[in-house]
Amino acid sequence: MTHSDRILMGPGPCNPYPEVIEAFTRPVLGHLDPEFIPLLDEINDRLRAVWRTENLLTFPVSATGSAGMEAAFVNFVEPGDTVVIGVNGVFGTRMCDVAARCGAEVIAVEEEWGRAIDPQRLLDAHTDPKIIALVHAETSTGVRNDIAPLGAGKGDALLLVDCVTSLGGIPMLADDWQVDIAYSGTQKCLGVPPGLSPLTVSERALERLVERPQSWYLDLNMIRNYVTGEGARAYHHTAPISMLYGLHAGLGAVLDEGLENAWARHQACGDALHAGLPELGFELWAQEGHRLPELTTVTLPEGLDDAAGRRALLERYGIEVGGGLGPVAGKVWRIGCMGHTARLRNVAMLLGALGELVSDLRATN
Amino acid sequence: MTHSDRILMGPGPCNPYPEVIEAFTRPVLGHLDPEFIPLLDEINDRLRAVWRTENLLTFPVSATGSAGMEAAFVNFVEPGDTVVIGVNGVFGTRMCDVAARCGAEVIAVEEEWGRAIDPQRLLDAHTDPKIIALVHAETSTGVRNDIAPLGAGKGDALLLVDCVTSLGGIPMLADDWQVDIAYSGTQKCLGVPPGLSPLTVSERALERLVERPQSWYLDLNMIRNYVTGEGARAYHHTAPISMLYGLHAGLGAVLDEGLENAWARHQACGDALHAGLPELGFELWAQEGHRLPELTTVTLPEGLDDAAGRRALLERYGIEVGGGLGPVAGKVWRIGCMGHTARLRNVAMLLGALGELVSDLRATN
Repeated sequence: MTHSDRILMGPGPCNPYPEVIEAFTRPVLGHLDPEFIPLLDEINDRLRAVWRTENLLTFPVSATGSAGMEAAFVNFVEPGDTVVIGVNGVFGTRMCDVAARCGAEVIAVEEEWGRAIDPQRLLDAHTDPKIIALVHAETSTGVRNDIAPLGAGKGDALLLVDCVTSLGGIPMLADDWQVDIAYSGTQKCLGVPPGLSPLTVSERALERLVERPQSWYLDLNMIRNYVTGEGARAYHHTAPISMLYGLHAGLGAVLDEGLENAWARHQACGDALHAGLPELGFELWAQEGHRLPELTTVTLPEGLDDAAGRRALLERYGIEVGGGLGPVAGKVWRIGCMGHTARLRNVAMLLGALGELVSDLRATN
Repeated sequence: MTHSDRILMGPGPCNPYPEVIEAFTRPVLGHLDPEFIPLLDEINDRLRAVWRTENLLTFPVSATGSAGMEAAFVNFVEPGDTVVIGVNGVFGTRMCDVAARCGAEVIAVEEEWGRAIDPQRLLDAHTDPKIIALVHAETSTGVRNDIAPLGAGKGDALLLVDCVTSLGGIPMLADDWQVDIAYSGTQKCLGVPPGLSPLTVSERALERLVERPQSWYLDLNMIRNYVTGEGARAYHHTAPISMLYGLHAGLGAVLDEGLENAWARHQACGDALHAGLPELGFELWAQEGHRLPELTTVTLPEGLDDAAGRRALLERYGIEVGGGLGPVAGKVWRIGCMGHTARLRNVAMLLGALGELVSDLRATN
């Protein structure tokens, strides 16, 4: 079975760094091999660098980003705990579902999709919640929610942040912002195919681990021995070694470039898209001042059909962009520029292709 | 970071088929790409062929084998349900832990490690359990438990089987044996690196799905729409595309060879190990008549130290074998011969290396 080589400009996955694909071809090691432990340690060190944290418990969960979300809740929520969750898109909504399955009393603080959530509303939602949770970069809307004010004002609560689409793409300063629990995915701004979910947990949060969470696979009490080397390197589950090779290489690419340079590259691509798309009749949809550079949402020029337009991009140019979700399905496109995809040449390619599509449309009308 | 190219003869992972590593390098597709759906469908068809099942809901869970175990319990157990579990090793013990976290009333039917469980004991353990669960191939002991009698005698119960170390290596006839729920891993007899957990669910079990399981990530009510195409191909979570390429290729290698031929190859390697190891002073440890060809357990010749022996194998020959777990830690080795590793040349290599080690040992004593 052969596959087309797409330029992946949807909401993720992105195109992986070439170093990542090369790393996939390395010989497989067992998860207890003496050569594997230093690799895992180095991955965790690199993750600390991109999270900007000193947290000991920082490692990739052996599953995709949504499992990271589940690990973040299931290890800290017990039945009856109050959890305040900001909801302005699909992933805030998913957080409520996951937390409720842990038995949480969820207080959802809702905001219109496409707009950012005022942090003060989350701080005011309850006097003493166990957790305050928010999505940093809403993949469904292209909106950045502000995290820093929550860390400053959280009081005794734990601050839990979804960084799936932010980590490596925009500043995310876990320690400075006093984030307690955060998770991400590999297939966005880290430039690695999907399959792992980086997770980081503060010392403060570690003291409040649920003793026996309902998930065995995601039980941090057991996993921490293996990944941190605090105790024995006790085997928990078989590590997905080839994916870990890929993550190691992707993080290496980001850190060799320099994290600030990677942020700047994502910003430059976002700026170019934000400038170029309106000239073609697309309108930027996310709230001004809270637009993600790595994920741009736009409404379509009059006459451009959602499905037909995306099909033409895919079939004629081999470029994938994403459609809208939920209330804006059919009305909004989500244009990602993340990881190795975040190059000005790809922005130029997309704007060129869209220009041709819009021009063809006008010619036939 | 470079890595040694080990010959992986531990309890898993095995060495992957070359086709698998080649598949990892394919261009990444999005999980909603029109080229991705046929790939997923073909993976699921191939899994049906190796499970010997017609089950509609047959797909790879997006995480390693232990997550398959969790998916198998969490979607079918509600608090208070009676679950009978056979326990004669680490993985039966783990099943009890996972089931208890779902709120099950667990009835553990124990047998000495290294011996097989009499199926009748499981059938007699309770008059009307919701689930009877057993490990087909115990990775911790090298023992094969018999499954067919459980299917014939299960009555109204669902039969749940761990096939992590059996699928692709020894006959596993899901439909003929009336298995309702089974899971496996990719890194054993399927010859793919770890990262996915093939799962299959009978129509009968599908009618008894828990409506809202405690795990969102493993919720089969939602996942079935995406993987079976019964409803819309509604997005659930981002699929681990590169691992799926690898599984597709690994299953292709097994089915191109012919499943019966793959079983015979594993059997021939097991037979050669079972014949050759005793000649070097190792004693076969698992119960006769229930020894797995793909995973051989042995006690060590007098004077051969567990840790030093395994280190010598790894450092001098680049061969990994596994140590014992639990009550036989330090006393037993676990020698895997699975997937692409299951070649007579690797058996010859290991026996040759062990012969040299034993001979050196005698010379120095």
